[in-house]
Amino acid sequence: MTERTMTLAAVEQISIRALVAAGTREENAAAVARSTMLAERDGIRSHGLLYVPIYAEHVRCGKVDGMAHPVVSQPRAGAVVVDAATGFAHPAIDAGWDRFVTAARENGVAAMTVFNSYNCGVLGHHAERIAEAGLLGLCTTHAPASIAPPGGRRPVIGTNPFALGVPGADGSAVLVLDQSASVVAKSEILLRSRGGLPIEPGWAIDADGAPTLDAAAALKGSMLPAGGHKGFGVGLLVEILASCLSGAALSKDASPFSGTAGGPPRTGQCFIAFDPSAFSGVFPQQVASLVDAIAAQEGTRLPGARRQAARLRTEREGVRVDPALMERIEALCA
Amino acid sequence: MTERTMTLAAVEQISIRALVAAGTREENAAAVARSTMLAERDGIRSHGLLYVPIYAEHVRCGKVDGMAHPVVSQPRAGAVVVDAATGFAHPAIDAGWDRFVTAARENGVAAMTVFNSYNCGVLGHHAERIAEAGLLGLCTTHAPASIAPPGGRRPVIGTNPFALGVPGADGSAVLVLDQSASVVAKSEILLRSRGGLPIEPGWAIDADGAPTLDAAAALKGSMLPAGGHKGFGVGLLVEILASCLSGAALSKDASPFSGTAGGPPRTGQCFIAFDPSAFSGVFPQQVASLVDAIAAQEGTRLPGARRQAARLRTEREGVRVDPALMERIEALCA
Repeated sequence: MTERTMTLAAVEQISIRALVAAGTREENAAAVARSTMLAERDGIRSHGLLYVPIYAEHVRCGKVDGMAHPVVSQPRAGAVVVDAATGFAHPAIDAGWDRFVTAARENGVAAMTVFNSYNCGVLGHHAERIAEAGLLGLCTTHAPASIAPPGGRRPVIGTNPFALGVPGADGSAVLVLDQSASVVAKSEILLRSRGGLPIEPGWAIDADGAPTLDAAAALKGSMLPAGGHKGFGVGLLVEILASCLSGAALSKDASPFSGTAGGPPRTGQCFIAFDPSAFSGVFPQQVASLVDAIAAQEGTRLPGARRQAARLRTEREGVRVDPALMERIEALCA
Repeated sequence: MTERTMTLAAVEQISIRALVAAGTREENAAAVARSTMLAERDGIRSHGLLYVPIYAEHVRCGKVDGMAHPVVSQPRAGAVVVDAATGFAHPAIDAGWDRFVTAARENGVAAMTVFNSYNCGVLGHHAERIAEAGLLGLCTTHAPASIAPPGGRRPVIGTNPFALGVPGADGSAVLVLDQSASVVAKSEILLRSRGGLPIEPGWAIDADGAPTLDAAAALKGSMLPAGGHKGFGVGLLVEILASCLSGAALSKDASPFSGTAGGPPRTGQCFIAFDPSAFSGVFPQQVASLVDAIAAQEGTRLPGARRQAARLRTEREGVRVDPALMERIEALCA
């Protein structure tokens, strides 16, 4: 079957319809659908339309409360706290957003934590949104445990990504960094497991802590962190911010993001925003000089360059979608 | 020659004397000497007494202004900015400390940046000090460039460490994480170069970007980041915070921390402190549960465990020092 092409607006609309049909409030559905659209725009298919049937299933089984009303508080001038009320992460983040951004401008720095939450899609998009407000954004989110501490065998932290959004002089992000703590994405191991394919050396260990090339054994064991104990350290930093500081369930105690078992994962996010103008008058010039020193070297690629290229292509050609997937999503809308 | 044993107080006193004799104000010398003592206490010899002759030399050649008076401002409620005035980093950090900690308690989060600065010794000790104030500390500092972007060959960022200090319930730090962006410490490559020894595979590339086992060629080339492009990403995060946000010289433009050439490096630090009680009521319990889940696994080691063990040993047995080094330091005091 040949691929279909859709506009970004159509991606967003059908996502809203599928989520509302599953039992999601319009406002909550719109926040999630926007993130689906942004993922498709940037070529990140794992978090695009492919996820819509999972979102719908999670609303239906009660892993996510589609009707949730997030509750925002601001215990201190620079601390915005959002209870996602076991709903989607995106509307919870939206609910706190204006207070978060205002607090960062007024105080020079602010942090927004979200608990009783769920996966927040592409983390880099939240960091980029902070950068588009003219602020430096450092975002963290955690996930059900899949990485054991070095030397151990029981997963304690998730793939726990961080993202950095660096504002440019013109209201857009000049650099977006978005990376998980693991050597590869968990979705890659899932894909190989379904296809009966082996994984690469250095990706994972089995449940006994031994290196494995068997994708199914890897899923029962532990993913390996990028850079050994230093990668685990980065994942631990994210865990302390996104789970411990936010008061979310720890990764080791959270129910899975996949499947229908276990109820709400109650995971969390922690976003930090800095107003560069509060600290220095030369921030834009220094960022430009740093970025140039990387980009000017043959053979290098700026973080986020692949997503930027996909974005330009999508804006020119539309989103290529799998007709079988679209049939499934259209059936969900009925 | 056999080793001598000294008390921690004696380490601190002789460091003050050597620094004052080189032309350092008493207050500035005391701040640096304290960090020297803490490094010896924790068995981190590279930042202990071994560094005192380098500090003294850097004061004498003007790389550091021993007489500097740091200037503190607070442009916003959560933003403390310190101009180290090309003096030592430690007195600059001390100068802003009380305002920084108070701002974090009042606002929930605060950041302190330092520019026109110098290397700040063991980064983890600053993070631990934040934790001892009952706050969660995330510290970054950068260094003259020694790591090229993946695919490139010209160093753009330094070994750029971050450190995390996690407060316990009793006023001490329950966890201190302190790690650089490179596979190994630069001091290890310097040591092998002086000894004419080869380095290990995966540590560095030469000036043409080719893998090398030659320590001297590595020093002319680039150190490799731990975890490939993800390790570089972590170093880039640190660069954006400690250099760009603080308004310090970029790593690529900074004069070296070793030798006497190039004048003040004018590098920077960025420390962030969060008051956990502003965000959640369960922070101590969650941290305890997370730490237990790591420590309970056979074969694992908590970050910072080696330093903790050295600390206990030093407090019991005193600091073992090299008599030849002590002779050099005593000569500096004359």
